[in-house]
Amino acid sequence: MIDNQFSIVDAKPKQVAELMRLHLIDEADFQLDPVALFGRLLAKTMTNGHDQATIEQNLHQLLATPDVDLADWLESGQPLSDSVFYLVALQLLQFEPSLDFQVDDPLAAITKINLPHRFHQQWTKDDVIDAWYRLIVTRNKNGQNYLDYLTSQGLFTWTYDLPADQKPLWFNGKSVATFDPAKFIREVVYIETDLDTDFDGYADLVKAEIIRPAETNDGLKVPAVFTASPYNQGTNDEWGEKITHNVNQPLTAKKTGRVKSPAEATFSDPRYHQQVNGHATEASQSFSETGSYTLNDYLAVRGYAIVYSAGIGTKDSDGLQTCGSPEQTDSMKAVVEWLHGDRKAFTDRTSGIEINAWWCNGNVAMTGRSYLGTLATAVATTGVAGLKAIVSEAAISSWYDYYREGGLVMAPGGFQGEDADVLAAETFSRTKNPADYRRIKDTNRDYLAKMTAAQDRETGNYNQFWMARNYRIHFDRIKADVMMVHGLNDWNVKPVNVKRLYDAVQGLPVASHLILHQGQHIYINAFRSLDFSEMINLWFANKLWGVDNNADLAIPHVLVQDNARPEIWHVHRNWSTSNKRTYYFSNKVLSTSEVGQSSLDSFNDHHDDVTFKQWCQQPSRWQEAMLADDNNFSLRLLSAPAKDEWLLRGTPQVNLRVAVDADHGMISAQLVDFGKERRLTTSPQLINKGGLPLGYHWKYDDLREFKLAKQPTPFKVISYGHINLQNIKGAGTVNKLKANRFENVRLLLQPVFHHLLPGHQLGLVIFSTDFGMTLRGNENLTYQVDLGHSSLTLPDMSAL
Amino acid sequence: MIDNQFSIVDAKPKQVAELMRLHLIDEADFQLDPVALFGRLLAKTMTNGHDQATIEQNLHQLLATPDVDLADWLESGQPLSDSVFYLVALQLLQFEPSLDFQVDDPLAAITKINLPHRFHQQWTKDDVIDAWYRLIVTRNKNGQNYLDYLTSQGLFTWTYDLPADQKPLWFNGKSVATFDPAKFIREVVYIETDLDTDFDGYADLVKAEIIRPAETNDGLKVPAVFTASPYNQGTNDEWGEKITHNVNQPLTAKKTGRVKSPAEATFSDPRYHQQVNGHATEASQSFSETGSYTLNDYLAVRGYAIVYSAGIGTKDSDGLQTCGSPEQTDSMKAVVEWLHGDRKAFTDRTSGIEINAWWCNGNVAMTGRSYLGTLATAVATTGVAGLKAIVSEAAISSWYDYYREGGLVMAPGGFQGEDADVLAAETFSRTKNPADYRRIKDTNRDYLAKMTAAQDRETGNYNQFWMARNYRIHFDRIKADVMMVHGLNDWNVKPVNVKRLYDAVQGLPVASHLILHQGQHIYINAFRSLDFSEMINLWFANKLWGVDNNADLAIPHVLVQDNARPEIWHVHRNWSTSNKRTYYFSNKVLSTSEVGQSSLDSFNDHHDDVTFKQWCQQPSRWQEAMLADDNNFSLRLLSAPAKDEWLLRGTPQVNLRVAVDADHGMISAQLVDFGKERRLTTSPQLINKGGLPLGYHWKYDDLREFKLAKQPTPFKVISYGHINLQNIKGAGTVNKLKANRFENVRLLLQPVFHHLLPGHQLGLVIFSTDFGMTLRGNENLTYQVDLGHSSLTLPDMSAL
Repeated sequence: MIDNQFSIVDAKPKQVAELMRLHLIDEADFQLDPVALFGRLLAKTMTNGHDQATIEQNLHQLLATPDVDLADWLESGQPLSDSVFYLVALQLLQFEPSLDFQVDDPLAAITKINLPHRFHQQWTKDDVIDAWYRLIVTRNKNGQNYLDYLTSQGLFTWTYDLPADQKPLWFNGKSVATFDPAKFIREVVYIETDLDTDFDGYADLVKAEIIRPAETNDGLKVPAVFTASPYNQGTNDEWGEKITHNVNQPLTAKKTGRVKSPAEATFSDPRYHQQVNGHATEASQSFSETGSYTLNDYLAVRGYAIVYSAGIGTKDSDGLQTCGSPEQTDSMKAVVEWLHGDRKAFTDRTSGIEINAWWCNGNVAMTGRSYLGTLATAVATTGVAGLKAIVSEAAISSWYDYYREGGLVMAPGGFQGEDADVLAAETFSRTKNPADYRRIKDTNRDYLAKMTAAQDRETGNYNQFWMARNYRIHFDRIKADVMMVHGLNDWNVKPVNVKRLYDAVQGLPVASHLILHQGQHIYINAFRSLDFSEMINLWFANKLWGVDNNADLAIPHVLVQDNARPEIWHVHRNWSTSNKRTYYFSNKVLSTSEVGQSSLDSFNDHHDDVTFKQWCQQPSRWQEAMLADDNNFSLRLLSAPAKDEWLLRGTPQVNLRVAVDADHGMISAQLVDFGKERRLTTSPQLINKGGLPLGYHWKYDDLREFKLAKQPTPFKVISYGHINLQNIKGAGTVNKLKANRFENVRLLLQPVFHHLLPGHQLGLVIFSTDFGMTLRGNENLTYQVDLGHSSLTLPDMSAL
Repeated sequence: MIDNQFSIVDAKPKQVAELMRLHLIDEADFQLDPVALFGRLLAKTMTNGHDQATIEQNLHQLLATPDVDLADWLESGQPLSDSVFYLVALQLLQFEPSLDFQVDDPLAAITKINLPHRFHQQWTKDDVIDAWYRLIVTRNKNGQNYLDYLTSQGLFTWTYDLPADQKPLWFNGKSVATFDPAKFIREVVYIETDLDTDFDGYADLVKAEIIRPAETNDGLKVPAVFTASPYNQGTNDEWGEKITHNVNQPLTAKKTGRVKSPAEATFSDPRYHQQVNGHATEASQSFSETGSYTLNDYLAVRGYAIVYSAGIGTKDSDGLQTCGSPEQTDSMKAVVEWLHGDRKAFTDRTSGIEINAWWCNGNVAMTGRSYLGTLATAVATTGVAGLKAIVSEAAISSWYDYYREGGLVMAPGGFQGEDADVLAAETFSRTKNPADYRRIKDTNRDYLAKMTAAQDRETGNYNQFWMARNYRIHFDRIKADVMMVHGLNDWNVKPVNVKRLYDAVQGLPVASHLILHQGQHIYINAFRSLDFSEMINLWFANKLWGVDNNADLAIPHVLVQDNARPEIWHVHRNWSTSNKRTYYFSNKVLSTSEVGQSSLDSFNDHHDDVTFKQWCQQPSRWQEAMLADDNNFSLRLLSAPAKDEWLLRGTPQVNLRVAVDADHGMISAQLVDFGKERRLTTSPQLINKGGLPLGYHWKYDDLREFKLAKQPTPFKVISYGHINLQNIKGAGTVNKLKANRFENVRLLLQPVFHHLLPGHQLGLVIFSTDFGMTLRGNENLTYQVDLGHSSLTLPDMSAL
């Protein structure tokens, strides 16, 4: 294991006070000599009991030196040393002799595991306190810092009974879990929007579910962490499957010129039918469980109200599922407005009893991944008051880049045939209330039919529908600080989505952080190698509580997980730089020297029926076949083996001169890291199911980590792009395509941050049908590429 | 979904009282007409709120007829009908229109899903109450009965505050979750055994962890559910891997005659060093979490103390890991004795403060799967007082049948090279206390070395070591009632283990139940199709609380999951009968007509290096290759396609006349169901991660179910057996083997309970090396089988 912690802040002047506040040291302890003090600190953190026999028993089970147990050593009169302190520390942090460290050389392990430490010739009392404080904030073998571990063992349950005005307790800039989950208050409210998306003439009510600490009833005002999740009230997976689109059909020639598509349904302003008949301070409706994000669970016991809403078109709310439209954004913004005191909510759908978020300090953050992170981003682009910070994880920043690309229908990886209408149907959970659904069924059917037309799978063009779902247009309105998290291998919500957001916020007066990990479409808050939850704890303390903890300085601006070695995270100052390197396609290799003479090569996009069907069913086999060898359905260009380690960062660009023997066609390209290597596993591996407690007898997460795969692989796709040859001027403009006429095509690939190992070769593969993502017409089309007039520009390819 | 419930008992006379006790009906409600009563009952089970607006809102979301919502219908003056009641019932049980039922024909779904029901021409008040009571105990789409669902929504948290002497509350013979998990008391005690397995001269102390309801402090005495798990305090997986034995080596000729192996270490009687210095009623040591069995979690909130102990040779206990020896059994029996008041325990390892299980009513059950169920079985064979019932899941009944077979070293499926010593090393968690391990390291090393010799991998014979670990010898001492659960596809702990236990207890004066499922080595308490947890709730109410609920009549004696269709469970009176059918091997087919003339066929056990290595790495590929086609390394005999459905139940026997061209050799056989078919998935599929709450804000399980696999498979192995040709008289006797001399071999295969579909063929495959389980010497041995003098006897092959 390698420990990467970015949430530890320098708090030397506060160390003693913070330790005393948590009863980890007493006034009297300062009179002790260093060894006795060490023993006293040890005794104070024992979690199975505090009587003398138990303390002795525990000390008797730990080693102080390779041969002397801790109980005996504390009586031995020996002075404290680096090796004794850190041998004990390793054991307290659950590292194991022989496996993780050698008992006769604990200091080697401390360095190897990258644990915070400070060595001393002679240990003074101050050194003991300082080292102990550091130990308390150091993560253990199971991905928890020692403080959180002690919390999960129940050592701090006494803090549950502290008066509300003494909470939260801060330790090293982060909130301690002092809020009793058994006493959480769970409430349901219905927030009145300014929308009428179900055409009934009345303002849509949107249900929100709130979990808040009992201390709010005693006067404590807390920030709200809000997750907007259209999935939260249930999904209609079978319904979505039924209307999934057939992708086994050919491209066709499109009408040229500016794009025109059928308009989607529009909504009118509503009447507000909820007459206010009274006010309540307690909700009349409650709930037991709601689909929760474990990061929110972690925060809940640390003094945050957690709020979930599924928005319009979901169970117990009004409205329709508009899939990313401004109305959906507004319905989520309404929740923030209510939390900030700027909007009405009611205790139920009919009585007109108003209820305020009186327990909220008015500061709101939004969290969540994928559609959830998308809506956090979308709401941030409204600049709504009260929204102080968003954690935008694997978020869509333009839905065109989710379901389309370069004038092509494009599937999110793994979801061939899905589109905005499919997702709308899947998330329209008003079906879960059968009588409600009976009433809205026809309206929803008609609305969805219009969406199907407006999204325009026929052309794949960028149009009004997609413009309405492009949040980038309003990036300049963002006022919240932004934490971005994205997988460099996320082929579902592709990295271009975060790159565009990252680039935009650099020009805005907001704090921003970017974390790029080696996963696909996943959460990272249960990684062993990274203290993500603690970073958020630190960051939200600053953003939502106003704690002056230097969070934005401690948390890296750009943090990138290494793709070549497990558990390594690199701090960077930016994603891309202005450096570039151009590769030319001479002699079917990638070379930095230009040739400049025409040199044609070609490939054909047709496959025999058996192969075609098999690859449709298992696109991974197509991918394997295409990269394994030269073949007639793609062009493969390889660089010379890299002599050094290289870092590729930014957006690669392919410049092609290409022709096809038809009036329609598409070009795809993949950038590949070729080299037989044990690479990181595709998904993080389960280390401990349910092994990460988020509080004391509260929720649990599954501890995970990427490891090196057992078997080497010959290559790995690191980026790709696709373009319709009728959209070479842009996704919203259609050019005529003449058979066999060469066109110059500029194709931007997905942005990368890739560590290329020595001996590996960069490869660029040019082809047409992408079995995993594009339409699959299996047409007999031949593409010609003029290698002499084509090139690949790689951004910032710098030696490591 | 198909619902199978065996925990519902007839409780007609108690219905009203039980409903009133749970506040699901009031005295005043009896004055209402049937429709108003129905409305009242509905309102009482609402879990999101009980104010009129919320009740109306909820009723407004449910359909009473295809077109009228429940709120409107209740006001309509229409009489209650079957279709209204059961349409509402389906919705309350979370079934979904279109997907699970049609709104215009709810009664068809009720029958198809197999939900408890009773139809009426005219619904009286009594009918409403009766139907409502049935609904309360009916399981919903998410594998919970409605009562447990309402519990998980918090409807019964008011019962937490009932006086201790009013608990448990019984509903339909089962305990309601009336015990607040937030108030559980967690204690650690150290039980003094009569053993000294670590050779220090003193009695081994064994740690036990206890979770008991707070009500025990107010005078309630509860039964204890004890799980004996050597894994519970951590495992040394890497250590086990290191000493895993190499299986790529040949059999060798063994010394003939009675078996003699090196003796294992023996233990002496201990001194009792724990002087009693006082008595405590409260433990001084506690804990936060321990590896728990979700069935125990389910029971914990229903009024049981849950006890875990890892026994000797584990973290915080004394002793060594003896892997199934009588000493290990005794260390677990000691826990039962303490719970029953027959043995001392202390609050810690040194102070001598004694503590009794004063909160226990003296009745104990043991639960757990695999090693855990094994120890439950083992402790039951001691006849220890207080042990009233065991749930023996996937339990070993003789360790020889776990690591050996027929004079051969035999791996549990998936664990090639494991043996008793490996498992002992893996579970010896005293390593987790580094100083303790430092002190015991050498002793343990010497002990393990003796175990390695005594288990005798050189011969694979049955010897003293294995006899000591054969619990069958003492089956006649069992006094506890026995619930057996085993997977018919469990190739880890093979079905012979449960068959032997089942057969034995039929002759004992104890109640017994057998559940055979289609899984491998798994738990079944989170299946959607079976109410296993509720069955245990019913059974333990009877066994441990003495509730007269007819549990042993309600729960089937033999319950078998169908292997051909999902979610079907059959009730049977026994496993096997005395019926038999013999197949002869004429002309290389399985035929019921005898031939009687010699007819030789042969196979050779050697493979080229590449194939051999590949199959060693992936035994599944060997399995595929062997069954896919005729080949020269096995003999394959097929029956004619079955004309009807057949049920095979019991132990198949192969009678072979066989010779090998060496002085050593082994024969394996597999019984195979041939027929292209979509079979059940190998593992139950996840339906809902964490979607099965076990109480209110308590633990959660992952809801699972076997489904039909998407793709058909050509065959499925249903049984097998292996024998060393030097052990044809028994595993404990070695005969000389002469090259090329024919021997008559009787080979018992694993017992089956298999549903063979029409058109399928039974196949018997004869071979030698089993890449998944036997040694793999890759020797050039040729085996000859005299087909004319060989046969297969199938037990009780009856038409369905």
